[in-house]
Amino acid sequence: MSKLIECVPNFSEGRNQTTIDALVKEAGSVPGVSLLDYAPDANHNRSVFTLVGDPEHIVEAAFRLCKLARDLIDLNKHQGEHPRMGATDVIPFIPVKDTTIEECRAVSLKTAERIWRELGIPIFLYEESARTPARRNLADIRKGQFEGMPAKLLEPDWAPDFGERKIHPTAGITAAGARMPLIAFNVNLGTADISIAKAIAKTVRALNGGYKYCKALGIMLEDRKIVQVSMNMVNYEGTPLYRVFEAIRFEAARWGVPIIGSEVIGLTPARALIDCAEYYLKIENFDYRRQVLENYLMN
Amino acid sequence: MSKLIECVPNFSEGRNQTTIDALVKEAGSVPGVSLLDYAPDANHNRSVFTLVGDPEHIVEAAFRLCKLARDLIDLNKHQGEHPRMGATDVIPFIPVKDTTIEECRAVSLKTAERIWRELGIPIFLYEESARTPARRNLADIRKGQFEGMPAKLLEPDWAPDFGERKIHPTAGITAAGARMPLIAFNVNLGTADISIAKAIAKTVRALNGGYKYCKALGIMLEDRKIVQVSMNMVNYEGTPLYRVFEAIRFEAARWGVPIIGSEVIGLTPARALIDCAEYYLKIENFDYRRQVLENYLMN
Repeated sequence: MSKLIECVPNFSEGRNQTTIDALVKEAGSVPGVSLLDYAPDANHNRSVFTLVGDPEHIVEAAFRLCKLARDLIDLNKHQGEHPRMGATDVIPFIPVKDTTIEECRAVSLKTAERIWRELGIPIFLYEESARTPARRNLADIRKGQFEGMPAKLLEPDWAPDFGERKIHPTAGITAAGARMPLIAFNVNLGTADISIAKAIAKTVRALNGGYKYCKALGIMLEDRKIVQVSMNMVNYEGTPLYRVFEAIRFEAARWGVPIIGSEVIGLTPARALIDCAEYYLKIENFDYRRQVLENYLMN
Repeated sequence: MSKLIECVPNFSEGRNQTTIDALVKEAGSVPGVSLLDYAPDANHNRSVFTLVGDPEHIVEAAFRLCKLARDLIDLNKHQGEHPRMGATDVIPFIPVKDTTIEECRAVSLKTAERIWRELGIPIFLYEESARTPARRNLADIRKGQFEGMPAKLLEPDWAPDFGERKIHPTAGITAAGARMPLIAFNVNLGTADISIAKAIAKTVRALNGGYKYCKALGIMLEDRKIVQVSMNMVNYEGTPLYRVFEAIRFEAARWGVPIIGSEVIGLTPARALIDCAEYYLKIENFDYRRQVLENYLMN
């Protein structure tokens, strides 16, 4: 069974079809790497690509795309709703099959080094590749955006991890790093009282002392007249889904409120759900890698 | 995403390495078909091969193996503990990816027809391919074994589904059919009273009025001094794992006995466990095919 790493580069172009087509073509140019999906967004003026490949070739694919984006996208002319700082704005590497977060960190460093050396674009390392806690959060890194970066890079704390304290004149600066797959997991409560969802969100999210890898908000579902604890689970190994689900259950019990359903939005690794089945069925000694049939069917 | 069918032919040879090697080599001879595993058993004098491929090429692979087994294995000289009736004893086809039991039934018929026409080996259709209820169960079909088959085929009810009422002189007769993946699922109870495990097994198994796709026995785990409801789940879509688990829980409650654990033995399709996570987490509108990341990584 071969190792697979997912790479989800974000490019600051979501409107010019010629540029998007060129990036799509380039994404298919590296043997051993597949483009699973690309999603251009005209409002954000941004495209998210989803690639998957082995640790060696995924570096090559990320590099080639970053090079092409540098040549085709000029941030000086860029407008869009989403915050951005580079032609290639961010390059996350995610372990998806027989790979670890450590291998993804190594891959992000290799990619970063090469982008600076060969393309002259400076790099911030973020998330699991960050060298200081202040660099973990992409929003903190990106603050000031493309226009504010020249001044920000001169601040004592904001030297890039690779490259000079100076952005590339048209391609700006890029963030690269390893992160776990993110799962959007929402739990619906049998009440229309938004204060209950907000109170429960605070008890489970890291920000207020809850589970380390859980971000949560309380929101109202207007059409259904119920409230929801809306979550981003940023590391399902560190904080499994069943654990926040059960925590929400016992917190909600304080108000006599039941959980009436949940949602997983978008993609999830099979393992995040199988871990939950293991918990509820009390399965002993389950070996995910060797006992799940599909693991023998994958590339 | 391509369709994949699993084929698990059983050959009546588990000792002669030359024959086994030849079958392994032949299994690799069809493009689009991969040999995932083979397991020779000297006591049973039998080998189980696990192949996977698309619906078209899996027929070709099963046919080629059956032909080679006919040429290399003589049932007149065969001895072993496992009941058997043919050089290729049984050929199950199992839907594993983007395929249905109906497609597997069609594949089993195509294979059966070709084996009779080109190899002169008669075929019984069994399990989901069976044309009568009496042919569903392989044990019923195989009763009498190779030595008893010439007489059995002359009985009114036992004409083969393909071929004459006469076995192949050395290769005997073969069963082919579609079946769902089988999951070996055992639930451990917090008691040493075997009568409780036996009573509960009866309540959940089809044989005594329980769940249609559940076979169950109560057994003692001597080393742990606890009892177990040991099950074969023969169709996890028809009878999901969580359903028998919860049924065992409420039956055991009658004796004040808790479930203390469970086991999955060998392989399971990811979906059988993800279905359980969906139930316990109350996930709404989950689309397994589109929302599970690994489905995009498979051949």
